[in-house]
Amino acid sequence: MVSKMKRILIGPPMKSTELADEKLTKFKALAVLSSDALSSVAYGTEQILMVLIIMGAAALWYSIPISVAVLALLLILILSYRQIIHNYPSGGGAYMVAKENLGLSFGLVAGGSLLVDYILTVAVSASAGTDAITSAFPALHEHRVLIALVMISALTLLNLRGITESASILAYPVYLFIGAIMLMMVSGAVQALTGQIEPVTAPPAYGAAVPGITLFLLLKAFSSGCSALTGVEAVSNAIPNFKAPAPRNAAATLMMMGVILGTMFIGISVLAYLYGIVPNRTETVISQLANAIFGRGAMYYFIQAVTALILFLAANTAFSAFPLLAFMLAKDKFMPRMFKVRGDRLGFSNGIIILGFFSALLIVLFNGHTENLIPLYAIGVFIPFTLSQAGMMRKWLREKPKGWTLPFAINTVGMLTTLCITLIFLFTKFAQVWMVFLFLPAVIYVFRKINQHYTAIAEELRIDIHTDKPCKKGSTVVIPVAGITRVVRNSISYATSLTDNVVAVYIGFDEEEIAKMEQKWAEWNPGVRLICLRSRYRSIMRPLIKFIDTIEWKTSATDHVTILIPQFVTKRWWHYVLHNQTSLLIRAYLIARKDVTITTVPYHLNK
Amino acid sequence: MVSKMKRILIGPPMKSTELADEKLTKFKALAVLSSDALSSVAYGTEQILMVLIIMGAAALWYSIPISVAVLALLLILILSYRQIIHNYPSGGGAYMVAKENLGLSFGLVAGGSLLVDYILTVAVSASAGTDAITSAFPALHEHRVLIALVMISALTLLNLRGITESASILAYPVYLFIGAIMLMMVSGAVQALTGQIEPVTAPPAYGAAVPGITLFLLLKAFSSGCSALTGVEAVSNAIPNFKAPAPRNAAATLMMMGVILGTMFIGISVLAYLYGIVPNRTETVISQLANAIFGRGAMYYFIQAVTALILFLAANTAFSAFPLLAFMLAKDKFMPRMFKVRGDRLGFSNGIIILGFFSALLIVLFNGHTENLIPLYAIGVFIPFTLSQAGMMRKWLREKPKGWTLPFAINTVGMLTTLCITLIFLFTKFAQVWMVFLFLPAVIYVFRKINQHYTAIAEELRIDIHTDKPCKKGSTVVIPVAGITRVVRNSISYATSLTDNVVAVYIGFDEEEIAKMEQKWAEWNPGVRLICLRSRYRSIMRPLIKFIDTIEWKTSATDHVTILIPQFVTKRWWHYVLHNQTSLLIRAYLIARKDVTITTVPYHLNK
Repeated sequence: MVSKMKRILIGPPMKSTELADEKLTKFKALAVLSSDALSSVAYGTEQILMVLIIMGAAALWYSIPISVAVLALLLILILSYRQIIHNYPSGGGAYMVAKENLGLSFGLVAGGSLLVDYILTVAVSASAGTDAITSAFPALHEHRVLIALVMISALTLLNLRGITESASILAYPVYLFIGAIMLMMVSGAVQALTGQIEPVTAPPAYGAAVPGITLFLLLKAFSSGCSALTGVEAVSNAIPNFKAPAPRNAAATLMMMGVILGTMFIGISVLAYLYGIVPNRTETVISQLANAIFGRGAMYYFIQAVTALILFLAANTAFSAFPLLAFMLAKDKFMPRMFKVRGDRLGFSNGIIILGFFSALLIVLFNGHTENLIPLYAIGVFIPFTLSQAGMMRKWLREKPKGWTLPFAINTVGMLTTLCITLIFLFTKFAQVWMVFLFLPAVIYVFRKINQHYTAIAEELRIDIHTDKPCKKGSTVVIPVAGITRVVRNSISYATSLTDNVVAVYIGFDEEEIAKMEQKWAEWNPGVRLICLRSRYRSIMRPLIKFIDTIEWKTSATDHVTILIPQFVTKRWWHYVLHNQTSLLIRAYLIARKDVTITTVPYHLNK
Repeated sequence: MVSKMKRILIGPPMKSTELADEKLTKFKALAVLSSDALSSVAYGTEQILMVLIIMGAAALWYSIPISVAVLALLLILILSYRQIIHNYPSGGGAYMVAKENLGLSFGLVAGGSLLVDYILTVAVSASAGTDAITSAFPALHEHRVLIALVMISALTLLNLRGITESASILAYPVYLFIGAIMLMMVSGAVQALTGQIEPVTAPPAYGAAVPGITLFLLLKAFSSGCSALTGVEAVSNAIPNFKAPAPRNAAATLMMMGVILGTMFIGISVLAYLYGIVPNRTETVISQLANAIFGRGAMYYFIQAVTALILFLAANTAFSAFPLLAFMLAKDKFMPRMFKVRGDRLGFSNGIIILGFFSALLIVLFNGHTENLIPLYAIGVFIPFTLSQAGMMRKWLREKPKGWTLPFAINTVGMLTTLCITLIFLFTKFAQVWMVFLFLPAVIYVFRKINQHYTAIAEELRIDIHTDKPCKKGSTVVIPVAGITRVVRNSISYATSLTDNVVAVYIGFDEEEIAKMEQKWAEWNPGVRLICLRSRYRSIMRPLIKFIDTIEWKTSATDHVTILIPQFVTKRWWHYVLHNQTSLLIRAYLIARKDVTITTVPYHLNK
């Protein structure tokens, strides 16, 4: 039943050779991997304006130079990640770069913060998307947790189905969003050039002196604007998902994304300035702009709808990136082995499921209000940004290939900038990001512990194939019986086929029961000795364990001890509750505590 | 860890011989078994007044004759159940009586409705008790579901600890409640006799004609008052829990309970009339009475507190009765076998847990508002009332012992009365009780299905011990291997100790892997043939299953086929997730689908 359901939801299994067909074209990759980055234009400009408005409307003109600075940072990041793509074509991004160049510890810091960050991405994007919907339809507000959970479940299922199929579905909204925002920018530009602008408020004079403005405030506005850059690293982590030649396609996709993101971001910032948009808590900047340019018509609602949609899709980027990063950490034995297994549909199912589970948990824990997680999420991106660029600097310094100075300079500028932003985040938003000092060490501790365990186990299991050969021993089989039935007969048939040392054991609760059983056994005479034990408790476990201890003590030097346990296999799943699963209990207990082998003889019930 | 927790919560296991010590004295039995019945006086009178007030305050005097009628019904029920106790000393009440005298179908109707009813009792009592608390402390109102769930969990744990221990805890509140209500009645009577009464409203003239009053309304008031009689049957179901001589002690307990219940019920009805209490939705009749008699002092709050407490304890009656009834149904093979097992602390743990689970589920489903379940709950009591008395009538008619006419008359009057009440419930409260026509057939269908299954299985498993003997066969062992490790060496050592027909099977994903494995195996030369298969999917299941099919097809006539599966037993529970539990998956799949024996060779990891 479960497996039927699975087929319907995620489709039939696929051959390994179909993997190549699952690879992404540039067109699809842009949709799958850039929705996180592109969706940030929905709030990037707004984040800057929100900080500036503290000093009054006159300070809003600063958004233009700050946006240009963010744009410059974007350029640096794109150039830097382009270099990473070509140098690390197997993906892994910050984790791989930091591990190889700065050492394992920095690699784990980068990997750990990205891993946690992807979970935050899904939670934050899903609830932001829900906010967009519930702002449009306030009646849905009380169901916001449910809506976010439905979205996360839908994304989980889509990703379990396989990455190309999800890409086909996801490509349209991303391109619709790009188209809609571009159209808005063109319309706004035409209105500006033809002088038809009707500003919401008079735009503040550009370059006007603002009393009381501080560098701290401008830096804070800049770092807030940098939240628009989250998601840029997704492409470099997902190179193995690209169609060959993967690195070149990935680099091209990254450039495309950078151009689109930069254009939309600076466009919205300039328009917001020209239209004199003042940020407020009840209407987003995008909504105000769309309203000013198109009026409250079909175009306005279309823009709102695709904005909501792309925020949901941003979560999907993490669904591509998280399982791949988990795979790489698992390959290096820092995460459980199960993240290495590809599922029926060739995706890393376990990573997808774990990501869906934890992000849903965050939604429930924060009751859908995950806004406060945004700074945490941003710092979780800038730490690996910084580390990967520091790693690239180290690489250039060490290898010094021909013409290394320009790339080195790019990475140095990038490293210093992202380091500054990380520090600005820490100082200006400590109340919201201090948790990073808790969870990052915790995650790295777990990584280390897992690695130690796997290393120790591998050591323990290793044998010398030249000297370490299997050796024969004797065998004693114990069969717990509760009466004389077809099941017991089958078990004895099986046991006597293996060895002559077979003993049946019966546990009774009073002498009368035991005498009756002994007499019936003698009458049956199956050729196997019966030992009867009396239990003073209702449990049959204690006497059984004691008996097995005795057998072990007597024979373990010469014999393997095997306990034979019959198990009913019922025809319908609900019949399962009808059969006293004592046998399963005995099995679980013995496996955990004793060094005896358990043989399960299935009995398939016909009724 | 789980087992340590269990010890702390429910105490160490007890010997079977301690069962006698667990038996109830009359004093404790009254507390354990009568809280359900006694708690109904908290709302019995109120239910009558609520119906009468529809016709105005002048109609309230009818509460006196109606209460007398309920009292008469109580007398009939007590006398009838006294007869049942002496005739059915092994307990089972309505189920046993109806089954033996009216046939199995009626027995199952009685058993099924009681079983469902006990679940309703717990849910209704727990939420009514919660209501009493939250009325006193309105701040707790939003946590009502949580409070009810905590109470149900506490009751479940108390009952898992064992019945006597819970009785010691539970005896005080019951006797405090009886004492408090009696004290209130005496104080009220003294005030009445000395003429000090200050009525809340002028009491309506007794016997005054009320225009528009109908027989239907009076019957409805009467049936509402009958909800005070729920719980009377508990004693007759729990006879095996009494100290010897069980039937006599049970009968005495029943009589005591009847006298106390009757006195308190009629007393409250008379006082309510004398003090001119008018029922309203915001204050209970008991609260109004206590206020009028004692004023809003310590005594008032004491009465409110013990009333709340006894409503919770009413739920405890069901915790004694449900597991016993489930045990009896399981003994007759109408419920799963697990309800026959006594737990470590000698209670029927499974019944206790199931009751706790389902009543908690009802609380959650109804969000703590289970008032609408009260009529359903009442009709679920009166159906078995009617059936058990009809059964007794049949018994007297069939056996005709000396002096049978009086008991026959009592049961006949009782049967007719309870039948009428059942019908009145159906006609006057159909909207709330129609579900009985759904769940009762459903429960009985399940009972029948379970019985058919057990009967069929017993038939299938039965062997003729004179002709049906075990027989030896050959043996083939298959060992799936993933590499050459200590675990594989152990498995091969074990397998070769059992038989010479051992084959190892390796599943690779490409030719290179397979060639490497074959070469290493040849070098190791463990004396066992290795067969390598290639999987075109990531799954190793499909090729393995195919291979086992082939082996079975070739050898099943002469050999038992055994699959040897190593299982890692980790030192700490969290290590469990670190080991790819492929082996467990293979095991579960093979057990369910194939007729092969699975042998689990445990490997206890040291690290």
